[in-house]
Amino acid sequence: MSEKALQYIRDNRDRLLEKLNDFLSIPSVSTDRKHKADVSNAADFVVTYLNDIGFENVEKQETNGHPLVYGEYNGAGPDAPTVLFYGHYDVQPADPIDLWDSDPFMPEVRNGRLFARGSSDDKGQVFMHLAVFEAYMKTEGNIPINVKVCIEGEEEIGSENLYDILHEKKEQFQADFAVISDSGMAAKNQPTILYGLKGFTGIEITVTGPDHDLHSGMYGGAVRNPIVALSHILASMKDENEVVTVDGFYEDVEPLNDEERKLMEQAPGEDFLETTGISETVSEKGYTAKEHTMGRPTFEINGIYGGYQGEGTKTIIPSSATAKITCRLVPGQDPTKIQQLLEMHVNKVAPSGVTVEVKKEKLSAKAYKVEPTHPLIKKAAISYTKAFGKETVYLRMGGSIPVVEWIEAIYDMPIVLLGFGTPDDRLHSPNESFPLDSFDKGMETLVYYWDEIKK
Amino acid sequence: MSEKALQYIRDNRDRLLEKLNDFLSIPSVSTDRKHKADVSNAADFVVTYLNDIGFENVEKQETNGHPLVYGEYNGAGPDAPTVLFYGHYDVQPADPIDLWDSDPFMPEVRNGRLFARGSSDDKGQVFMHLAVFEAYMKTEGNIPINVKVCIEGEEEIGSENLYDILHEKKEQFQADFAVISDSGMAAKNQPTILYGLKGFTGIEITVTGPDHDLHSGMYGGAVRNPIVALSHILASMKDENEVVTVDGFYEDVEPLNDEERKLMEQAPGEDFLETTGISETVSEKGYTAKEHTMGRPTFEINGIYGGYQGEGTKTIIPSSATAKITCRLVPGQDPTKIQQLLEMHVNKVAPSGVTVEVKKEKLSAKAYKVEPTHPLIKKAAISYTKAFGKETVYLRMGGSIPVVEWIEAIYDMPIVLLGFGTPDDRLHSPNESFPLDSFDKGMETLVYYWDEIKK
Repeated sequence: MSEKALQYIRDNRDRLLEKLNDFLSIPSVSTDRKHKADVSNAADFVVTYLNDIGFENVEKQETNGHPLVYGEYNGAGPDAPTVLFYGHYDVQPADPIDLWDSDPFMPEVRNGRLFARGSSDDKGQVFMHLAVFEAYMKTEGNIPINVKVCIEGEEEIGSENLYDILHEKKEQFQADFAVISDSGMAAKNQPTILYGLKGFTGIEITVTGPDHDLHSGMYGGAVRNPIVALSHILASMKDENEVVTVDGFYEDVEPLNDEERKLMEQAPGEDFLETTGISETVSEKGYTAKEHTMGRPTFEINGIYGGYQGEGTKTIIPSSATAKITCRLVPGQDPTKIQQLLEMHVNKVAPSGVTVEVKKEKLSAKAYKVEPTHPLIKKAAISYTKAFGKETVYLRMGGSIPVVEWIEAIYDMPIVLLGFGTPDDRLHSPNESFPLDSFDKGMETLVYYWDEIKK
Repeated sequence: MSEKALQYIRDNRDRLLEKLNDFLSIPSVSTDRKHKADVSNAADFVVTYLNDIGFENVEKQETNGHPLVYGEYNGAGPDAPTVLFYGHYDVQPADPIDLWDSDPFMPEVRNGRLFARGSSDDKGQVFMHLAVFEAYMKTEGNIPINVKVCIEGEEEIGSENLYDILHEKKEQFQADFAVISDSGMAAKNQPTILYGLKGFTGIEITVTGPDHDLHSGMYGGAVRNPIVALSHILASMKDENEVVTVDGFYEDVEPLNDEERKLMEQAPGEDFLETTGISETVSEKGYTAKEHTMGRPTFEINGIYGGYQGEGTKTIIPSSATAKITCRLVPGQDPTKIQQLLEMHVNKVAPSGVTVEVKKEKLSAKAYKVEPTHPLIKKAAISYTKAFGKETVYLRMGGSIPVVEWIEAIYDMPIVLLGFGTPDDRLHSPNESFPLDSFDKGMETLVYYWDEIKK
């Protein structure tokens, strides 16, 4: 059944690419007030496309910010599964414009790549889904599954209104599973299943001593130095083996099994030394850097400040010092419990003579993970391999995608991340691009996938 | 012989106070370009005064900044000792002006105190010396000792040119001992000998990891966090008992003997809790807060920074982190050796995966100490007690006065600190004032002192 749709994509490839270029030419920069009309125009593009294909109940839902586009296809009938497809049509600003080799909003193909802001993140990948729906409709007159489309316009500014909308429209958006194509593959033409993302939480520690900065000559020897105190607290939280030394931190961690560790070791990854300039990697004792980044929780101090930061010397005992800490969590760990453990630890080790305040980060999230053996995942791997002609690799990533956590928390349904970007796409940077290979084979993957799902 | 001079001071008290007011009315703010002419006028005031008294070789020595006033009295003859008297005629800015209860440059007496910028620091105390020289000259026709006067106009901006001048004019300025009146007493009307000041040195530690800030999700677990590494380094340098844990740090420290510890405990001091707002004092294990501030070396982190310091959260592994450290040193300790020990320690404990750079502070100084039993000190104590009618207390202070270290290092002569300020003088702050008691009894002390020295 998929053959006709595949053929349609091949036959219409130039026209589809041109149509994508129209989409990419709209500077839908959500963070910039000047582009408010452009953002709205990009929403209209999606609305028109969905209507043209034959979707129902297509709406441009207004929010407090930029609109969200919704549409449904119910033609597969009540017995077929329904997928919620999420994506975003807004883009990052193009600045610094000077560093672009071609206009960010005049798409240009060079060296097998399509250069334009949004080509990879996420307009290009959203468009591929729409084109595949079109292919099915034009050739078969139907799509193998029911679809609910949710394409927002505020992803690049933190999805400010989406969280509330997902709650409010729960009935409307509910589906059997969700598909998101806003991520990448381990390497170009390397089919990749991203089956895990980390959760996230954080605290801020402020140590306060004297009520004003003190002369170190007059008071040094009588007053606890808040920076020294903070150093002791921080040093007690992670040791030189990169092991977090906070009681209970690892208690609920789902251990990595041998299968997963093998997957992680086999996964293609970047050369950390080359991309970061460090002299050697370090990772939790007993785990490789790959295992730690992908599958073990992390503890990072993201920022620290206190006292004098200018040129030269100022001989003070500062009044206070602050450190910002975030942790990436793995399946099993509860962000609220982790925050409590961190706070208890800080209070336990806090020295006398200073007051220590712990502020808890509001935005916390559990880790996301779907079993690599889940049928929805197996089918994705099969589809990838058919399209790219290569074995699919399985990755867990150290990052977090808020919308994934939200959909999982609110809808309690499996989420499949079907990403086609590559590490060289330069998301958020000048000269963003997307490989035409990913465009072509990605659409093929989607054709196979809906076909597999239907089976 | 001192009786006549004492009587002269009493008889001329109102006129002298009026003359001091003329001196204080000149806004000789050295840091403010707008006051350049005023600073020069204040120098002229000193020049005129010295000439009027009958000093020889009086000069206004131009420097790259503000002038230095020099003058000599050689009338005591070649067998009498020569004192180098140092002081400064420049003052701190008066800002914030609104917080003054009277014009900072229109001296006003309230509640037994003379309110004016510079009344205590240091014009008032310089004037007292000049008035005492006048008293001797007008009554006896001579001063009991030979005098070299060095009054600079850049103390409040770091004595930028003085260090070079002290080297260049070594022959001209050489004396048997030096007297400086730019400090205070432990309490009002409490004769105090400041017989020790701490030395000073410092280092700056910068830990560098990746060559740019990294996404904590992508790299957390593979890259050493520079702030975590810095925390470990810092925490290893001073423990919770306020003991510096750097090998050799205490090696050359002259131990405090029982006599000194008794002096320190008896010395009146401020209420640390009240003036700093801390809940309890902390000090080196085995020493009281007074002993530590006055007589034991200190280690302070004056500032720290690295990574994200803004509102909320930024999930990065920062590229680098920096801490500024200074130590106050006691007699026996060599600043250069201490810097080396600190550097060796840092290099020893530096973890892998980051580079650690230690920058050494250029301005280092040994501690200053004169034996309380030194004849010049004994005589000072006797003079204080005669004037104030109270036993003299002996203090070592945690602070450093650069010019004291310089004179000691360049001229190798004893230095006597004859201070008459009080803890309530509000130096550098609005409503600076000087007790009239200190003015009257301080001049008496000086009359007695030159008389004692002559004996």
